[in-house]
Amino acid sequence: MARGSRRRRVEDLDALMEGVRRRSPRALGRAISLCEDAGPQRERLVRRVYPEAGRARLVGITGPPGAGKSTLVDRLARHLRARDETVGILAIDPTSPYSGGAILGDRVRMQTLYTDPGIYIRSMATRGEMGGLARATHDAVDVLDAAGFDWVLVETVGVGQDEVDVVRSVDTVLVVTLPGLGDDIQAIKAGILEIADVFVINKADKPGAERAASDLEMMLGLGEGLERKPPILRTVASRDQGVEELIAEIESHREWLVESGELERRRRINLRLRVEAILKQRVLEAADRAVGLEKELEAGFQEHEDPYQVAERLYAGAVGLGHSDPVEKEEASR
Amino acid sequence: MARGSRRRRVEDLDALMEGVRRRSPRALGRAISLCEDAGPQRERLVRRVYPEAGRARLVGITGPPGAGKSTLVDRLARHLRARDETVGILAIDPTSPYSGGAILGDRVRMQTLYTDPGIYIRSMATRGEMGGLARATHDAVDVLDAAGFDWVLVETVGVGQDEVDVVRSVDTVLVVTLPGLGDDIQAIKAGILEIADVFVINKADKPGAERAASDLEMMLGLGEGLERKPPILRTVASRDQGVEELIAEIESHREWLVESGELERRRRINLRLRVEAILKQRVLEAADRAVGLEKELEAGFQEHEDPYQVAERLYAGAVGLGHSDPVEKEEASR
Repeated sequence: MARGSRRRRVEDLDALMEGVRRRSPRALGRAISLCEDAGPQRERLVRRVYPEAGRARLVGITGPPGAGKSTLVDRLARHLRARDETVGILAIDPTSPYSGGAILGDRVRMQTLYTDPGIYIRSMATRGEMGGLARATHDAVDVLDAAGFDWVLVETVGVGQDEVDVVRSVDTVLVVTLPGLGDDIQAIKAGILEIADVFVINKADKPGAERAASDLEMMLGLGEGLERKPPILRTVASRDQGVEELIAEIESHREWLVESGELERRRRINLRLRVEAILKQRVLEAADRAVGLEKELEAGFQEHEDPYQVAERLYAGAVGLGHSDPVEKEEASR
Repeated sequence: MARGSRRRRVEDLDALMEGVRRRSPRALGRAISLCEDAGPQRERLVRRVYPEAGRARLVGITGPPGAGKSTLVDRLARHLRARDETVGILAIDPTSPYSGGAILGDRVRMQTLYTDPGIYIRSMATRGEMGGLARATHDAVDVLDAAGFDWVLVETVGVGQDEVDVVRSVDTVLVVTLPGLGDDIQAIKAGILEIADVFVINKADKPGAERAASDLEMMLGLGEGLERKPPILRTVASRDQGVEELIAEIESHREWLVESGELERRRRINLRLRVEAILKQRVLEAADRAVGLEKELEAGFQEHEDPYQVAERLYAGAVGLGHSDPVEKEEASR
């Protein structure tokens, strides 16, 4: 990026924040794009947004492919709008050079919602960087929160550790499953059971809903010492069944979060994850400036050094360089 | 851990390596448990193991729940044993306080394999730490590789970023899917398409296998510029159909890896991921020793500081502390 264009962007931050506060779709889109990038612009934005966030209700929706999460999110948004509450939606995409944005084809269903200024929908994806998607999601949730949306819904595909980290950016986690997954439901449950605040068996009109519910009940029975046993709800999102009950459960969970102190505990974990991700980025940047990340990696590879040897050299370089804050550095050079 | 017991363990490393080289199940189990821990013992082990690794064929098996991955791994192992080749298997578990080891109940099917000294099976899981499972898997693959297994099979559940990172520890990635996932197959494909070397449509005797194959073909058509288009195979693992063909594809892929230079490229990426994970751990440890990780996080939380402010303080502390190598440090203190 040219030096000039970066400087121009820096000066736009006041205007951008103004647009975010007005919930201008263009400003929101630009701000969330910044969250997907690395670099000082993102840091400046997050530092502006962070103090204004903290009021929205943050709900994560996760679960295995096929559970009907998008349809459920669609229905939730419509019901919340009917109460005159505003809704920001982040659809977290696994990244692929093949799919581009095509994976969100099913968002066409939500097209009618797009024309409503009380709703903002945005998909997010990042490439490669370990934990990068979780970090970008945390930042984007702050943007929508600071923009004043009453609700922020974060939908993720998948059941891996990354989803667990992504949903840690929210307060209430819905784990959506479906009947008839057979034995493999065990694997799904094992991965996400611990993060579920509310279970939703969607497509509950299909055969096997009873068994899915009793399987979940059994697993929950094993989770002794839980402070709050997650309720199991049944929905048929495509027919708009069970959605009001689900919203009531989300609200009841929110009350419990505040009263029990669990909301504070979760926000502490959230801060820790974000700080760890920033520290990792800092040390990589410092090592790169000091000794050259690529150069040292290549030397280590050629010499068949073990990863600890290579890391040690990079760390020593990073530490030798001393304090490094990209924002201060750039500002000092202006 | 008591100081005394740690020292005793240090002195056991020669014996442990000896056991690993003999493929003693007890030594392998102990070595892989060390890979799941943090700390200097793990680092010492990896440094011993790393130079002896690099000969095994490393195959990852991933894909959505329900695809029949465990059964397929079971069959692959039996076929490879029939050729008198040895097989180490790592089953990567999503962690849960509920499931304990119960998720691997379906491993009972593989019980007959356990009595064969040419096969070693082990499940792995780590709690919480972002990217921790990927790092532990890389190290455990080295252990099995150094132990002299001809093949190391790494099976993961899920389709998230963490799985992508885990399978980066292998050379050939099988993405296993199944017929009849409907529209959501798009989501699955988007997340893992880019890492697939060979596609396997398992349960190919079920309705929808044709459509699954043509959907995959279509997606692959979009992936222009691929150096090697992944083949699409059909198996019915439960009936032992298609397994020999799959092994032939894995071997053909391996030849291509070596000839094209892609094997080197992947091992470079592998080294980078491992080095990055170690650097992150180093900076967190240094910050903790310098200023106290918990204390600074709590102060930041109380003052509602943004994550960059907190990270900056911790980073400055870590850098101020200077060079820190837990192994050297411990050895210096002896």
